[in-house]
Amino acid sequence: MLLLSFVFAFFSFGIGENDIKVNNPDELNAAIKNAVPGTEIILANGIWKDIQIKFFGNGTNEAPIILRAETPGKVTIEGISDLKIGGKYLEVRGLYFKNGFTPSKTVIDFRLDSTTIANHCKVTDCVIKDFTQSNRSKKDHWIEFWGRNNELSHCYIAGKSNSGPTILVSLAGNENTNNYHQIVNNHFGPRPRKGGPHGETIQLGDSYTSMAPGFTNVSNNLFERCDGEVEVISNKSNNNEFRNNIFYKSEGSLVLRHGNYCTIDGNFFIGDDASDFMGGIRVINSGHWITNNYFYKIKGKEFRSALAVMNGVPKSPQNRYNQVTDVVVAYNTFVDCVAPWQFSVGANMDKKEVLPLQEIRSARPLRTIVADNLIFNQQANDFPIKAYDKVDGVLFKNNVMNGPNNSDVKDAIQTVDFSMTKQSDWLYVPTSNQSDVFSGFDFETIQKDLFGKKRANSSAIGAMVFPVDKSKGQLDKKDFGASWFSDENKKTVSKTITVSSEKELAEAVSKANPGNVIELKKGIYNLGNSLVIDKSITIRSKDKKQAAVILYKGQANSSIFLMLPNGNLTVENLNLKGENTQNAFATKEKDMASAYNLKIRNTEISGFDFVLKAFKDSFADTISIDHSVIKNCKNGISLASENDDQGEYNAEFVYIRNSKFDNIQNAVLDYYRGGYDESTIGGNLVFQNNLVSNSGALEPSGILIKTRGIIQVGITNNTFSNNPVKAIAVFWGEKKQEPKDNTVKNSGEFKTEQNLKLKMMY
Amino acid sequence: MLLLSFVFAFFSFGIGENDIKVNNPDELNAAIKNAVPGTEIILANGIWKDIQIKFFGNGTNEAPIILRAETPGKVTIEGISDLKIGGKYLEVRGLYFKNGFTPSKTVIDFRLDSTTIANHCKVTDCVIKDFTQSNRSKKDHWIEFWGRNNELSHCYIAGKSNSGPTILVSLAGNENTNNYHQIVNNHFGPRPRKGGPHGETIQLGDSYTSMAPGFTNVSNNLFERCDGEVEVISNKSNNNEFRNNIFYKSEGSLVLRHGNYCTIDGNFFIGDDASDFMGGIRVINSGHWITNNYFYKIKGKEFRSALAVMNGVPKSPQNRYNQVTDVVVAYNTFVDCVAPWQFSVGANMDKKEVLPLQEIRSARPLRTIVADNLIFNQQANDFPIKAYDKVDGVLFKNNVMNGPNNSDVKDAIQTVDFSMTKQSDWLYVPTSNQSDVFSGFDFETIQKDLFGKKRANSSAIGAMVFPVDKSKGQLDKKDFGASWFSDENKKTVSKTITVSSEKELAEAVSKANPGNVIELKKGIYNLGNSLVIDKSITIRSKDKKQAAVILYKGQANSSIFLMLPNGNLTVENLNLKGENTQNAFATKEKDMASAYNLKIRNTEISGFDFVLKAFKDSFADTISIDHSVIKNCKNGISLASENDDQGEYNAEFVYIRNSKFDNIQNAVLDYYRGGYDESTIGGNLVFQNNLVSNSGALEPSGILIKTRGIIQVGITNNTFSNNPVKAIAVFWGEKKQEPKDNTVKNSGEFKTEQNLKLKMMY
Repeated sequence: MLLLSFVFAFFSFGIGENDIKVNNPDELNAAIKNAVPGTEIILANGIWKDIQIKFFGNGTNEAPIILRAETPGKVTIEGISDLKIGGKYLEVRGLYFKNGFTPSKTVIDFRLDSTTIANHCKVTDCVIKDFTQSNRSKKDHWIEFWGRNNELSHCYIAGKSNSGPTILVSLAGNENTNNYHQIVNNHFGPRPRKGGPHGETIQLGDSYTSMAPGFTNVSNNLFERCDGEVEVISNKSNNNEFRNNIFYKSEGSLVLRHGNYCTIDGNFFIGDDASDFMGGIRVINSGHWITNNYFYKIKGKEFRSALAVMNGVPKSPQNRYNQVTDVVVAYNTFVDCVAPWQFSVGANMDKKEVLPLQEIRSARPLRTIVADNLIFNQQANDFPIKAYDKVDGVLFKNNVMNGPNNSDVKDAIQTVDFSMTKQSDWLYVPTSNQSDVFSGFDFETIQKDLFGKKRANSSAIGAMVFPVDKSKGQLDKKDFGASWFSDENKKTVSKTITVSSEKELAEAVSKANPGNVIELKKGIYNLGNSLVIDKSITIRSKDKKQAAVILYKGQANSSIFLMLPNGNLTVENLNLKGENTQNAFATKEKDMASAYNLKIRNTEISGFDFVLKAFKDSFADTISIDHSVIKNCKNGISLASENDDQGEYNAEFVYIRNSKFDNIQNAVLDYYRGGYDESTIGGNLVFQNNLVSNSGALEPSGILIKTRGIIQVGITNNTFSNNPVKAIAVFWGEKKQEPKDNTVKNSGEFKTEQNLKLKMMY
Repeated sequence: MLLLSFVFAFFSFGIGENDIKVNNPDELNAAIKNAVPGTEIILANGIWKDIQIKFFGNGTNEAPIILRAETPGKVTIEGISDLKIGGKYLEVRGLYFKNGFTPSKTVIDFRLDSTTIANHCKVTDCVIKDFTQSNRSKKDHWIEFWGRNNELSHCYIAGKSNSGPTILVSLAGNENTNNYHQIVNNHFGPRPRKGGPHGETIQLGDSYTSMAPGFTNVSNNLFERCDGEVEVISNKSNNNEFRNNIFYKSEGSLVLRHGNYCTIDGNFFIGDDASDFMGGIRVINSGHWITNNYFYKIKGKEFRSALAVMNGVPKSPQNRYNQVTDVVVAYNTFVDCVAPWQFSVGANMDKKEVLPLQEIRSARPLRTIVADNLIFNQQANDFPIKAYDKVDGVLFKNNVMNGPNNSDVKDAIQTVDFSMTKQSDWLYVPTSNQSDVFSGFDFETIQKDLFGKKRANSSAIGAMVFPVDKSKGQLDKKDFGASWFSDENKKTVSKTITVSSEKELAEAVSKANPGNVIELKKGIYNLGNSLVIDKSITIRSKDKKQAAVILYKGQANSSIFLMLPNGNLTVENLNLKGENTQNAFATKEKDMASAYNLKIRNTEISGFDFVLKAFKDSFADTISIDHSVIKNCKNGISLASENDDQGEYNAEFVYIRNSKFDNIQNAVLDYYRGGYDESTIGGNLVFQNNLVSNSGALEPSGILIKTRGIIQVGITNNTFSNNPVKAIAVFWGEKKQEPKDNTVKNSGEFKTEQNLKLKMMY
């Protein structure tokens, strides 16, 4: 303990003989310029704002040049700032990037410019949090790897909500190949759903350099709720290794998108009952080895299956889908997964008429071995394998399951009577070894199990060799990320503020702390200006039986509630009235850096231009309307401003339930996504148990509920009465959309378009 | 010397205690079955006919199982035979494959079947000569590599004239990747021109497995007149090495067709004045290092340039052309080459209207370095670089030439006044070092020069560091191939046989030795049967002024001269007459295993159905007609039976000069090649100084000289008179074909079709 304190003091506060403490940019630049191997440049505690640090020089293996915080975490880099590193044996420690964004294309770049790149450089014990562009469509990467032998370790990185992978490893140029970069022991905290592509947490290479050898090592990291898009990690180069990472409740998969001969060994994919979006490993290309991985409660299907092996495009173009060949999937364990294995995912031979030939995925997996895997279900799941095409190129050997297999490929799995024991929330361990293992070509190289235990001593199917150490199965966040940082939220105490006038209301909204509830006494509130919502807040009538009325008299095109990034508004028991030219709810017109949420319950809305108007680049995670009445408005809910057809959309989840719409002149809902992108699975609409009447009269499209390009659409149990439209909704047949149990009186009909014509995105 | 004799005796003739001499297949099979590590199975001298040897077992590194000839070269494998090897540490020595062909797909296969493959096995000191299929369109490989760590060394291999690469290395399946096969010290003797694709000498992988790492080593081999097709070596996998090979007067290139990160170091590419077809290195894909190579008198251009760097297809399909990126071309020497460097070869942006998009090569080389190369010309060549597109992705550094560079990329080469000394027929060595070298990324790994001399001691541009050892530059064939075999031809003594009757003529043709001349006394020879030509022979009139007449009375559709494989016929001063239903010359209808040649001089041909009728699968290297008269025939020269449109054609060179054609009812010439294949450069037609009259009246196409799909067509200085056709010829505009200096009287016109519609071959 004494020793530890000493070490801590030495590294954090001590000033050695080669140390230079700097207090401002000039001192910093001078120190960098004069640094020699062994120099330690110490940034004084405090806020370093609007600074672009160029850290260059040549240290040595024995004596790196170090740039560090005086106290780890007490040096914050804020504002419009970034850090570029060029040279060799340079090390950055203890910095905290927050309250800002980069003016360049990266927050931390492992190169100064195209000629001065980093080799043997390290960024460690740092945090980048919410350092996201104000406009979510503005693209950047938080960390770009260039050169060779660089390291990102023990960092906490979370909250990127703009376009672009959080980390990009570039392999363009021989000096960036065979890079052996280390991305280890980091904590990748929540990355919110982005809506559309370009929300990866790590991307290794790109399709243009996907022939290059990477040898990047991504190991021992925690990926927690990395929900940016369907790919948490997008591998696009060769020979990379992914070992012992924990994918914790992340809505996406580790995707072998391009590149070959990667190793995915000993990782945990942990899902839960709350989401169908959490995935496992999606396989494309050749020669990967997928071994010793543990999948728990992965509820994703198709692209997000625990194991999704795709069909390829014959002679695929470089940026599409190569055939899966020579892949080995061995010694993995799947517990309580909905779709443990899916083969020929993406097969779309039936689309030959509507898609270009180079989009048709008809090339089945070839020379692939799936052996010695174990599937365990607490509740019977007799359909563990879904195959979208013939499975004639896969050799199945010695896979076992604790129940019958009645799925598409019956011979692939043997039923064995065995049990597993719950050792933690998410870890189930074997109670004995299933020891009849198959040994394929080079299988002897799989020497250890998920926990590093030698396989040689005991023969065992599945990821774990019995017995498993009792200590396994705990997730201690302290094992990941920066030593000085914790992302455990302080519990906010809910506080209720009661208001009785427009002025009090405006003041309360402005000053409320996150989590506060504002209650309006009964009466009429004549509001002249928007209420700006930039935090989590609930606004409701104090008297549940008698709704307070907000009569909005603001400018035309303004709105009662103006949603800002991170705004999270719940409206309950209110009566919102407009003068026909304003909106009830709207987003800011720009700089919607992060998502917002909106929940409307037991509320009446009338007399508005738009009920909700979402501007371009805005994104709602969830919009929910329940038990409300919406009437006499020109437009309903508009989530249709992402019209570039690049796969983006304005809201992930839209729930409209148990509500009444009457006399909405245009569409009741306009919800749009454009661009052909087969891997997107949003947005999501539930329109249920509503009554819609006398609406759509002026809608130019003649469609009452517009959902073009939205993937998940459910319209059930509603009544449509006297709506003068041609169509209530147009379903996308390919996505199996169809109406269910609706009552239609004197309204348009439901239509279905089997294959949408969509703009190709690439 | 004593020691050497002893060793020789021991390995060749000695019978050790583990040795088993076998005299027949049963004994051989039993011996193989019973072999243990260290067993040496000795095949008794003699002919082993129609035998399929399955050599299997497991030797060890220290004690391999050996299968060898009693005396090297005295065991011939003949007839319908092959050899399959499966297991490990097996070695085959001293066998001679001749007079036959394989009944399977390989002559020597490094596997017994798909499950029993070879590892650590070796074939050495063997010969495969003319072991070619009787039908040249029947495809096989003479040697197929499977497994890992196998070796083909010190073998002589020549004379494959059927379809299929001589050697194929397969990488399908993990057990065949990272194979480290050794193809070393072999002599690849002449492989005749094949006409069309599939005539490679070595192919490493294929486009479907081109993502796989090969690590195959092709070093210290002699490739002598490997003329099969445009690719002597077709690399289609990754990480292969080509070192210190000699490409001697071979009509083709080392082509990096698919796959990446190969090394081409220290090779010799030796051409001569006689052929424009000898090439160097053609570059496609990424990450190759091309260093220390020596190019002498390479006259090829475009695809066959000494260094041809291609344009790629953007986002290329797997089997087309990836963009060139990250390639290094350094320290090479080019002496007296016509087109030392060509960039963006294959650029065809102007074909967007006629070709599918995935055929358009518009992606220029990127991130490529060309540095420290030396170009030396004895006669000024001020246009060393041809660029078919912008050269904006190539960095040129410190390249030198002994004369001005007025070519497309002027800055790429510096003019320096230096000289070189002739040290052998083909080796020119520097007289000093051009020492201002550029050092790019990883250039320090280029440690040695062409001859293995360390570069560290002296800085030198080009392949050689001055001074060069005087002994260098000699090509001793004994350094390559089997120890006991020489391909030096015995000189044939020309002998003349005079004949004066049909019977004597038939007998003389049948019994003549290769190289003999048969002279016909003047008079009329009434011939009832074909003369079969299966060797090199000349048939001519004894009296040059009074031609002997051969009056052919054979069956309809038969021919005076029936050309067989290897037939090489010269006809001089004869008068050949038919009865309108037969042919003057024809090939066999099938089993045209090898090419034939036909030379006609001062001869009159009349009264035939076809002057020459070439059947499917036949192939003439050269057909030449000079100073002859051809008249009153239904059809002229027909070389048009390769109608599958797979790139094949019936003759490589056709020369028709100084001759008269009169009253040929259909086309005078029908010469055809079909199928889109951008790398083919044949066939070749020279039609010069002829008089063609009164012909083509019944030709259905209305074309007098049909050359569809033939690449090189020259029609110059002819007179066309009174031919009732629509077109004399239709030129292929894209290939820059055009008529020159012809006189046309009352005949059709010359037409040009800019872009032929051709069937896609893949």
